[in-house]
Amino acid sequence: MLYLDNAATEGTKPAQVRAAVLAAMKVCANPGRSGHRLSLAHAEHVLACRQLLSDVFGGYGFERTVFTRSCTEALNLAILGVLEAGDHVVCTTLEHNSVLRPLHALAERGVISYDVAPLTDGKLLPETIASLVKENTRLVCVTAASNVTGVSCDLKAVRSLLPERVLLLTDGAQGAGHIPISMKAAGIDLLALAGHKGLHAIQIGALLFSERVEPRPLIFGGTGSESLSLGMPSFYPDRLESGTLSYPAVCSLFEGLTILKSARRNGLYQITAALREAVGEIPAYEIFSPPNACGIFSFRHKGIPSEEVASLLSDRFDIAVRGGLHCAPLAHKALGTLPDGLVRASFSAAQGMREAAMLVNALKKF
Amino acid sequence: MLYLDNAATEGTKPAQVRAAVLAAMKVCANPGRSGHRLSLAHAEHVLACRQLLSDVFGGYGFERTVFTRSCTEALNLAILGVLEAGDHVVCTTLEHNSVLRPLHALAERGVISYDVAPLTDGKLLPETIASLVKENTRLVCVTAASNVTGVSCDLKAVRSLLPERVLLLTDGAQGAGHIPISMKAAGIDLLALAGHKGLHAIQIGALLFSERVEPRPLIFGGTGSESLSLGMPSFYPDRLESGTLSYPAVCSLFEGLTILKSARRNGLYQITAALREAVGEIPAYEIFSPPNACGIFSFRHKGIPSEEVASLLSDRFDIAVRGGLHCAPLAHKALGTLPDGLVRASFSAAQGMREAAMLVNALKKF
Repeated sequence: MLYLDNAATEGTKPAQVRAAVLAAMKVCANPGRSGHRLSLAHAEHVLACRQLLSDVFGGYGFERTVFTRSCTEALNLAILGVLEAGDHVVCTTLEHNSVLRPLHALAERGVISYDVAPLTDGKLLPETIASLVKENTRLVCVTAASNVTGVSCDLKAVRSLLPERVLLLTDGAQGAGHIPISMKAAGIDLLALAGHKGLHAIQIGALLFSERVEPRPLIFGGTGSESLSLGMPSFYPDRLESGTLSYPAVCSLFEGLTILKSARRNGLYQITAALREAVGEIPAYEIFSPPNACGIFSFRHKGIPSEEVASLLSDRFDIAVRGGLHCAPLAHKALGTLPDGLVRASFSAAQGMREAAMLVNALKKF
Repeated sequence: MLYLDNAATEGTKPAQVRAAVLAAMKVCANPGRSGHRLSLAHAEHVLACRQLLSDVFGGYGFERTVFTRSCTEALNLAILGVLEAGDHVVCTTLEHNSVLRPLHALAERGVISYDVAPLTDGKLLPETIASLVKENTRLVCVTAASNVTGVSCDLKAVRSLLPERVLLLTDGAQGAGHIPISMKAAGIDLLALAGHKGLHAIQIGALLFSERVEPRPLIFGGTGSESLSLGMPSFYPDRLESGTLSYPAVCSLFEGLTILKSARRNGLYQITAALREAVGEIPAYEIFSPPNACGIFSFRHKGIPSEEVASLLSDRFDIAVRGGLHCAPLAHKALGTLPDGLVRASFSAAQGMREAAMLVNALKKF
């Protein structure tokens, strides 16, 4: 099968990542929980992975880099673990349900209020976002890249228009690994990451946060530290990491980041640019992705609903893409693509023009 | 290294488990998120794993079997997602910090109150637990087996002494895979499980729950269902599972459970019985584990603190065990093993008398 659903999860992990996970399944200890050689060595590798994450994303050191199950959990930690009663939040119409649903849950209980920045010609304008900031705005959430169209936003420009007291949260699920993100350079306070997409790892998430924010834990439990206390340790990362870490997942992320550091990333931009040109010539299709779109190419057929196009591509051409709403309802509302959604073809760093041409050939035959 | 720290995490995953994870890293889709062949096949396998978990632990079907990051997250879901203001809880002195810390967090905010059942001669007596139940007791938490000594409690007897309205929560982190646990047979309402110990999987957790309880989500996000709604779906398992599942971890759990179903488990009981006899003959040691102790053998040296014994075993004999408090402070307080804790040697199903003899030989040389 030609797998073009890498924005949902990367279809094939690099050999180096697979080897690291395999090794961690053959010889595994609980990192830092015991005093023996293996547990200590694993704890050191976990620390090295935290530091690498922080380095790659211009973060605030290993203490302020916590591992989570997923980017969704990291976003929840950044929202539920940071906001307080009476706070106001500005998010954008491109946010995923992993941002919208926790905000909605807090707003429904009357804890916070929030406003959603609209699109202008399919794009987020920094000045639109900044114009919604109020006196009690504590947090502004802007995705690094839309998981629907792949469009990204100039985070540094957003930051420059915000009052200093406002925290900037970025959802890096789709953008990380595709576009450069530096917390320090862009003034990002909280960065949520997914390991299993652009970072080449198996499923693991991370939240990186600046010295301006002190997230509270959502989950309580053993940390291997201050075990006599029934309260959580007061220091990071322990305060936010209860329970055994997935050592195989941490190893996979370390290798994925190592690959990423040495990789050239412009191949994916050429693919989406080429697809825009080739599919643009077929009158039945309407294209929604810009040329530089984090490996995402989204479109619709003027006569066939997106889910049906995706099914036909799977059944008749053995090509995997994703139709529907991509868990981002407001984005589709803003793009005018409700209720049928869009077809999203998404490429991995290992794919190229050959895969793009196979998609174009199939789309021509519809 | 002779790895005897399997109660912290199983040191070597079975070949069948490693092969399943490897396959899931070569061909991976996001289960159920897309309509293509691969995503649908993965969704079916995830469903089969839920059903298998439910079958193995006498649960309430696949809808009431949710995957979590860890047993800690599952316990938090069962405590923070179930209790309401004014509830009273009874737990036991053998509980891990993954139970004690969430209870403490709620009690600290004045949401709930709780009492801790003490030990009688190192054991939990069902009548002691039941005697602490009050009019507003909503939940009783009893571990299936102590992670410190391996001692277990008769859950069915506990249930028989509780008023029907009271929910029974069991922490299966150490017991599952070692002693038979059936929710339906024992009257357990909530069962939290760790994949990476007795179930042979990589890190993943699960919460199984009966029809008498409707846990609320702690984390909000995309579920691939009802995507237009900013609220979480009302049905299980979706209501409690935001974000991408770890398909490699689910595959590992499926294989681990398959192995478990066909395995004979009494080898570990022979090991701990033999260790009690052999180490019992050395006057310097005091033993804290009963013979049938889920592969756990805990002891202390009368003259050397537990952490130091563990370090010496690692440095001089290349044997990995865990000293200290094992994230279970009240258990150590009750056993009179504070502040130095105990040495815990813990065996996997793949180990036997040879490994036990190597430990005894090392302990004789101290």
